Amino acid sequence: MAGGDYDSPQTSPSLEKQFEKFRVQLEDSGSLRERIRAVVLEIESATRLMQASLLLVHQSKPIPEVLQKANSQINVLKGLYNKLAEVVRECPGQYYRYHGDWRSETQMVVSLLAFMHWLETGNLLMHTEAEEKLGLNNSDFALDLEDYLVGVCFMSNEMPRYVVNQVTAGDYDCPRKVLKFLTDLHAAFRMLNLRNDFLRKKFDSMKYDLRRVEEVYYDVKIRGLATTGDSVGDQGAQKI
Amino acid sequence: MAGGDYDSPQTSPSLEKQFEKFRVQLEDSGSLRERIRAVVLEIESATRLMQASLLLVHQSKPIPEVLQKANSQINVLKGLYNKLAEVVRECPGQYYRYHGDWRSETQMVVSLLAFMHWLETGNLLMHTEAEEKLGLNNSDFALDLEDYLVGVCFMSNEMPRYVVNQVTAGDYDCPRKVLKFLTDLHAAFRMLNLRNDFLRKKFDSMKYDLRRVEEVYYDVKIRGLATTGDSVGDQGAQKI
Amino acid sequence: MAGGDYDSPQTSPSLEKQFEKFRVQLEDSGSLRERIRAVVLEIESATRLMQASLLLVHQSKPIPEVLQKANSQINVLKGLYNKLAEVVRECPGQYYRYHGDWRSETQMVVSLLAFMHWLETGNLLMHTEAEEKLGLNNSDFALDLEDYLVGVCFMSNEMPRYVVNQVTAGDYDCPRKVLKFLTDLHAAFRMLNLRNDFLRKKFDSMKYDLRRVEEVYYDVKIRGLATTGDSVGDQGAQKI
Amino acid sequence: MAGGDYDSPQTSPSLEKQFEKFRVQLEDSGSLRERIRAVVLEIESATRLMQASLLLVHQSKPIPEVLQKANSQINVLKGLYNKLAEVVRECPGQYYRYHGDWRSETQMVVSLLAFMHWLETGNLLMHTEAEEKLGLNNSDFALDLEDYLVGVCFMSNEMPRYVVNQVTAGDYDCPRKVLKFLTDLHAAFRMLNLRNDFLRKKFDSMKYDLRRVEEVYYDVKIRGLATTGDSVGDQGAQKI
Repeated sequence: MAGGDYDSPQTSPSLEKQFEKFRVQLEDSGSLRERIRAVVLEIESATRLMQASLLLVHQSKPIPEVLQKANSQINVLKGLYNKLAEVVRECPGQYYRYHGDWRSETQMVVSLLAFMHWLETGNLLMHTEAEEKLGLNNSDFALDLEDYLVGVCFMSNEMPRYVVNQVTAGDYDCPRKVLKFLTDLHAAFRMLNLRNDFLRKKFDSMKYDLRRVEEVYYDVKIRGLATTGDSVGDQGAQKI
Repeated sequence: MAGGDYDSPQTSPSLEKQFEKFRVQLEDSGSLRERIRAVVLEIESATRLMQASLLLVHQSKPIPEVLQKANSQINVLKGLYNKLAEVVRECPGQYYRYHGDWRSETQMVVSLLAFMHWLETGNLLMHTEAEEKLGLNNSDFALDLEDYLVGVCFMSNEMPRYVVNQVTAGDYDCPRKVLKFLTDLHAAFRMLNLRNDFLRKKFDSMKYDLRRVEEVYYDVKIRGLATTGDSVGDQGAQKI
Repeated sequence: MAGGDYDSPQTSPSLEKQFEKFRVQLEDSGSLRERIRAVVLEIESATRLMQASLLLVHQSKPIPEVLQKANSQINVLKGLYNKLAEVVRECPGQYYRYHGDWRSETQMVVSLLAFMHWLETGNLLMHTEAEEKLGLNNSDFALDLEDYLVGVCFMSNEMPRYVVNQVTAGDYDCPRKVLKFLTDLHAAFRMLNLRNDFLRKKFDSMKYDLRRVEEVYYDVKIRGLATTGDSVGDQGAQKI
Repeated sequence: MAGGDYDSPQTSPSLEKQFEKFRVQLEDSGSLRERIRAVVLEIESATRLMQASLLLVHQSKPIPEVLQKANSQINVLKGLYNKLAEVVRECPGQYYRYHGDWRSETQMVVSLLAFMHWLETGNLLMHTEAEEKLGLNNSDFALDLEDYLVGVCFMSNEMPRYVVNQVTAGDYDCPRKVLKFLTDLHAAFRMLNLRNDFLRKKFDSMKYDLRRVEEVYYDVKIRGLATTGDSVGDQGAQKI
């Protein structure tokens, strides 16, 4: 019969019983989210400190100085990611269920680490290197590849500003270096089939960074300033 | 030196090597997505057929008849979810990484199953019952709780229409039954602390379904039609 | 060598020669488009006339009268589509290249023909019937299936208004008829796997037409007006 | 009577029969689209590889080297377009029905082929030459003229960047060559009556490319660099 014996005593109780179970489950995942959120907030503020000291590089403060202060935050972050991993580890196989809760913060962390690594070595921070720095080289709590790639794109967005400020400070060789680096990076990205729309958009922005740096390099060249990287203002380069 | 020995031969190769590895990884997850998509398209069309036959209930076709046709699709869906589980099982612990690719389709499936179950028994299809029907009672590939709850909300959205059509067909007792059911369901949901915005919004819509059914019940009562379900036009109820 | 012997005499001439050829080709397809456009404008105005006379049905003018005036435009349209087919036939295999130029106008034509056909017979105008009316039953210039389906959706959008006006005019049996028709139509559409986003959206709107008609039928029923279709105001039904 | 004998048994069946036929037709064109999509995805990734190697020209890598890697993809693309043609050939006269599904990808392919051809010969890749390279010189599956023209516009968008990088690398004669080429090309396009809005917009962008190249040529001239292409930094030109 339509609607069946909907008045039968057992229906509502079973309904209540099920939703009581749901209530507990949702509370659990909810409080887990809260704990994740708490750690992510700490990660965010450590990142802010790191970024604050790193920004001084645009005022062409000596790079070693800048890096020393910024590096001091890496271990803090490593500890926090370790903490985060422990929380997430409580519900095995659900890394990607909560992934969105630390995603953007992690992309920012990667972008800063990659920029610092480039200042130090002139090379791209590899995925595995980033994982090591953050203690994420585990099977169960790793650094998502797309987060790493987005972070690298964010780093590239910082490059044009850095080049402009370095040239202003008299480091006329910087554009060439950055251009070489960004060109390789851009070509490498081009090999990837980016189905992730967000990542694809971020990558597209890299093309504009590249063009901007090319224009700066062009200006320096056409004025015959690029012949030598040694100049009074070239502190950054000298000190390293 | 800033930018390091970026000209050294090994840098670019290692960069290319890493991105070549990324290319393969992204290709793999991309083609996995393609395969998931293929199964989801099949699920979608099986759902469409199920819904098409279920819609006849609004024409007050005899419920058993309607259900028989609709039920025939359940095993098809079970087979497809089994297929989907096999695909997803290939990358253990990544259920939630691809979850978004079958999420909305599954919510629709749940809403139809729940509506069919209510027509049959007058009770709410339980979470475990839904999992059994779709063969999702596994630890590694289960029916996400929030998807189940959203599906239940979708089912409730169908109720006002059903009530209106049943009353039109002369089943004047239907509003009371549905009202009782929706009131219990709404009360049960109220117990939950919904942090998921999408689910919360869907639940809010349930309040309007409830209100609309109350209005229909009021119309029937005020006209003294609710006392008996027998009337000239009462074809629907007769067939049941 | 980079840029090759770009100064060699033959380059520019060959360039010019090619673009001169392009110019002709683009002129040709351009003027073809103009001629298509001219016919489409005629189709549009014939459709307007048809619609103008058809609108009187909402004032419950006797249906035969209304249809007679509207039908008079069908042959005009048939002639125009014949004209259009001749133009398009000039470039074989390019029907779909120019299809967009008469698409929406044709969908409107179909919706009017389908509404007229329903008023006359109570049935859906079939695809082949629509093609016959417009003389489009050719292999090389047919009525695109999706255009037919969109037209049918447009017709359904007219139904709620028609039902409301008929009930106002005292035809209390109209909602039942329309509801039966729309329910069957909606169920039939449900069988289709609509990948065409535009068509899918139009179909979704049919669901609201259906609900609106159900509400009207409900109002009529709940007030005990639906028992008989014979009433003073029921001119439309009587005259046919 | 209005709504006719809508209860007569034959109506609904014929409706269902028609829509069952539609369902099959839509499934067919849908799965055809899926197969087209699969090939287009392959075309996209082959294009990506081609572009990745071609990008090195902006680093003034020796052009022959660059072209050799890029050229290796042409046959891959030819094979894929052959595959695509076979799929589309299944429904004769419907090339333009599905044209939109490979349109933008093909425009990108053309732009790369045209850029490569210019690097090799200093001339514009002709429409027929593009068709030959892609094996599209068939009556039933050709390279749409407007796609070719859009592709050429995309190529022109790459020119300013190329010029800037070549000058930076010391090839001070490049601006003159490119300017000559772009001026001829722009003049040729001017002959066309572009009614296609998308193509017209792309062509407008060519004017800005032209202007930018003129500016670079001016910079080079005003500094008396244009007289000779030999300079310390002139690696790019030397390698060629």
